Amino acid sequence: MAGRAEQFRKDREVLNEKILSSGSKTFQRFFALDTAAYRAGALPVKTKELMGLAASMVLRCDDCISYHILRCAEEGLAKAEIMEAMEIGLVVGGSIVIPHLRRAYSLLEEVTAE
Amino acid sequence: MAGRAEQFRKDREVLNEKILSSGSKTFQRFFALDTAAYRAGALPVKTKELMGLAASMVLRCDDCISYHILRCAEEGLAKAEIMEAMEIGLVVGGSIVIPHLRRAYSLLEEVTAE
Amino acid sequence: MAGRAEQFRKDREVLNEKILSSGSKTFQRFFALDTAAYRAGALPVKTKELMGLAASMVLRCDDCISYHILRCAEEGLAKAEIMEAMEIGLVVGGSIVIPHLRRAYSLLEEVTAE
Amino acid sequence: MAGRAEQFRKDREVLNEKILSSGSKTFQRFFALDTAAYRAGALPVKTKELMGLAASMVLRCDDCISYHILRCAEEGLAKAEIMEAMEIGLVVGGSIVIPHLRRAYSLLEEVTAE
Amino acid sequence: MAGRAEQFRKDREVLNEKILSSGSKTFQRFFALDTAAYRAGALPVKTKELMGLAASMVLRCDDCISYHILRCAEEGLAKAEIMEAMEIGLVVGGSIVIPHLRRAYSLLEEVTAE
Amino acid sequence: MAGRAEQFRKDREVLNEKILSSGSKTFQRFFALDTAAYRAGALPVKTKELMGLAASMVLRCDDCISYHILRCAEEGLAKAEIMEAMEIGLVVGGSIVIPHLRRAYSLLEEVTAE
Repeated sequence: MAGRAEQFRKDREVLNEKILSSGSKTFQRFFALDTAAYRAGALPVKTKELMGLAASMVLRCDDCISYHILRCAEEGLAKAEIMEAMEIGLVVGGSIVIPHLRRAYSLLEEVTAE
Repeated sequence: MAGRAEQFRKDREVLNEKILSSGSKTFQRFFALDTAAYRAGALPVKTKELMGLAASMVLRCDDCISYHILRCAEEGLAKAEIMEAMEIGLVVGGSIVIPHLRRAYSLLEEVTAE
Repeated sequence: MAGRAEQFRKDREVLNEKILSSGSKTFQRFFALDTAAYRAGALPVKTKELMGLAASMVLRCDDCISYHILRCAEEGLAKAEIMEAMEIGLVVGGSIVIPHLRRAYSLLEEVTAE
Repeated sequence: MAGRAEQFRKDREVLNEKILSSGSKTFQRFFALDTAAYRAGALPVKTKELMGLAASMVLRCDDCISYHILRCAEEGLAKAEIMEAMEIGLVVGGSIVIPHLRRAYSLLEEVTAE
Repeated sequence: MAGRAEQFRKDREVLNEKILSSGSKTFQRFFALDTAAYRAGALPVKTKELMGLAASMVLRCDDCISYHILRCAEEGLAKAEIMEAMEIGLVVGGSIVIPHLRRAYSLLEEVTAE
Repeated sequence: MAGRAEQFRKDREVLNEKILSSGSKTFQRFFALDTAAYRAGALPVKTKELMGLAASMVLRCDDCISYHILRCAEEGLAKAEIMEAMEIGLVVGGSIVIPHLRRAYSLLEEVTAE
C-alpha cells in the first residue's frame, strides 16, 4: 500500500489502542457501536462506507475522510464510485469542503493507482 | 401519500419556483448541479439518496432529511435500508442528532405505512 | 411543572418510545450509551448536565438545550449556575447562539419560577 | 412594514430585553460587543450587514438570516445586492443551505416589495 | 510575495488542477460556479471577498480563510478593512474561532507588510 | 511540563500578543469577555473548564481542546474527571469527534503523567 495510507493506518491503530485501554467503558462501547454500524445488514458494507465518506466530507474531518476512502478501496469500490460520493459531499457541503476535497482526491489517486 | 409528506412537497415546490424565477444565475446553476449530482452514474440513484440522507442527518437539517427520506422511499428502498442510513447518521453525528432522528423516524413510519 | 416544559417532555417520550421499539439495535445501544454517559462517575450528575447544556448550546440544538435545562433544574442546580453554563455556551459559540439563548433563557425563567 | 418582519422584530425585542435584564454581565457585554462590531469603521455598515448575512447563511440560522435581511434593507441595500450575499452563502455553505435560502428569499421578497 | 502565501498558492493550484482534470463534471461545474459567485455584479469584488472571508472564519476553515485574505489584499483592501471582516467572524462564530484568528491575523500581517 | 504542552502554550502566547496589540477594540474586548466567562462565579473554575472542554470537543477544535485540557489539569482535576468530559464530548458529538479524541487523550496522558 502507498506510504501515506500506511502511515495513517499505523498512527490510527496506536492511538485507538490507547483509548481502548484507557479504562473508559464509554469509549469502548462507542467504538464497538461505531464498528457495528458499518457491518453488513439490510445494506451492504460498500454502501455504508460510501455514506460514511459522504458524511465525513460534509463535516469536513480529514482523518475520517481518509479512513473511509481507504475502507471504500478495500471493499473494492472503483475510483469512479468513490468520486461520486465526493461529489455528493461537495454539493451538500459547499465550497468550504474544497480544501478537504483536494486532500481527499489526492489520497484517492494514490490508493487507486496501486 | 401521507399528509405531512404531501404538504412538505408542495411548500418546497412553491418556494423553489420563487428562487428559480428570481433571476439569479447562481441559484439556477446551483439547483441544476444539485439535481445532477443525484442522477445515476457509476453509483445508482438509491445509493446517492442514502448518502444524501446520511449527510443531511449529520448536518442536522430537518427539511433535507425529510426530502431524502421521501426520495429514498420513492426509489423503492425498504424501511430497514433507510433505517441503516439513519444509524450511520446517528453514530457519526452523535446524540445531538437525536431530536432530528425522532422526527425522521416518525416520517419514515408514515411514509412506509402507506 | 410549567406547560411548555411538560409538553416538551411528553412529545420526547412518545418519539423516543417509537425509536426504541423500531427494532434497530444501533438506536437502542446508542440511547443506552447516551444515558450512561450522564450517570454519576468521577464527576457528579450536576456537572455532567452542565456540560451537556454547554455542548448543546454551541451546537445550537433547541431540543437538546431544553432537555438539559430541565435536567439541570431537576438536579437542583440554581438559576445562576445554569446561566453560567449558558454564558460559556454564548462565548464559545458566538452571536449565532443568541436566538437559541433567547429561547433557552425564556425556558429557564419558566422552569425556575415554579 | 410587512407582517412577518414586524412580528419577528417584536418577539426579538421582548426576549432580548429579558436577557439584558437577567443580571448576567457576560450576556450584557456580549450583546454590546455584537452591536459594536456592526458599526461603521474602516468598512461601512452596509458591508458589515452583508457579511453578517453571508455568515448567518453558512451557519444556517434562520433568525440570524432574517435579522440581517431586515438590517440590509433598512440600510438601503437593493434586492439584487442582498441576493448576491445569499449567492455567496449558498455556494460556500452548499445545498444544505437551500431550505434556509427558501425562507430567506421569501422574506427578502416581502421586505423589498414594500 | 511572502513565502507562506506563495507556498499556499502553489499547493492550491497543483491540487485544483488534479481535481479539474479528474473527469468529474460535478467538480468542474462546482468550481466554475464558485469562481462566478465572486465576480463583480450588483456588489463589487471587494465586498464579495470580505463576505467570503467572514463566512470562512465562522466555518473555521484555515485554507479558505487564507485564500480570502490573499484575495482581499490583491483587491487592494486595507489591513483595517480586512481586520473588520475578522471582527465580524469572531463575534458571530465565538471563541472557537480564536485559533483560526491567530493564524489569520499572522498571515494578514505578513501579507500587508510587503 | 511536557514538551508538547509547553510548545503549545508558547505559540499561543506569541500569537495572542499580536492580536491584542493589533489595535482592534473588538479583539481586545472579546478576549477579555472570554477570560471573564471562565472566572469563578456561581460555578467554580473547575466546572467551567470542564464545560469549555466538552464544548470544544463537540465543535472539534484541537487547539481549544488542548487549551482546556491543560487548564483542567492546572486546576487540579483528576485524569478520570477530565476523561468524563471527553466521554460527554464523544457521545454528544459522535464518531466524527474520534480523531480529536485520539489527540486529546494522548495529550491528557502526557499532562497527567508528570
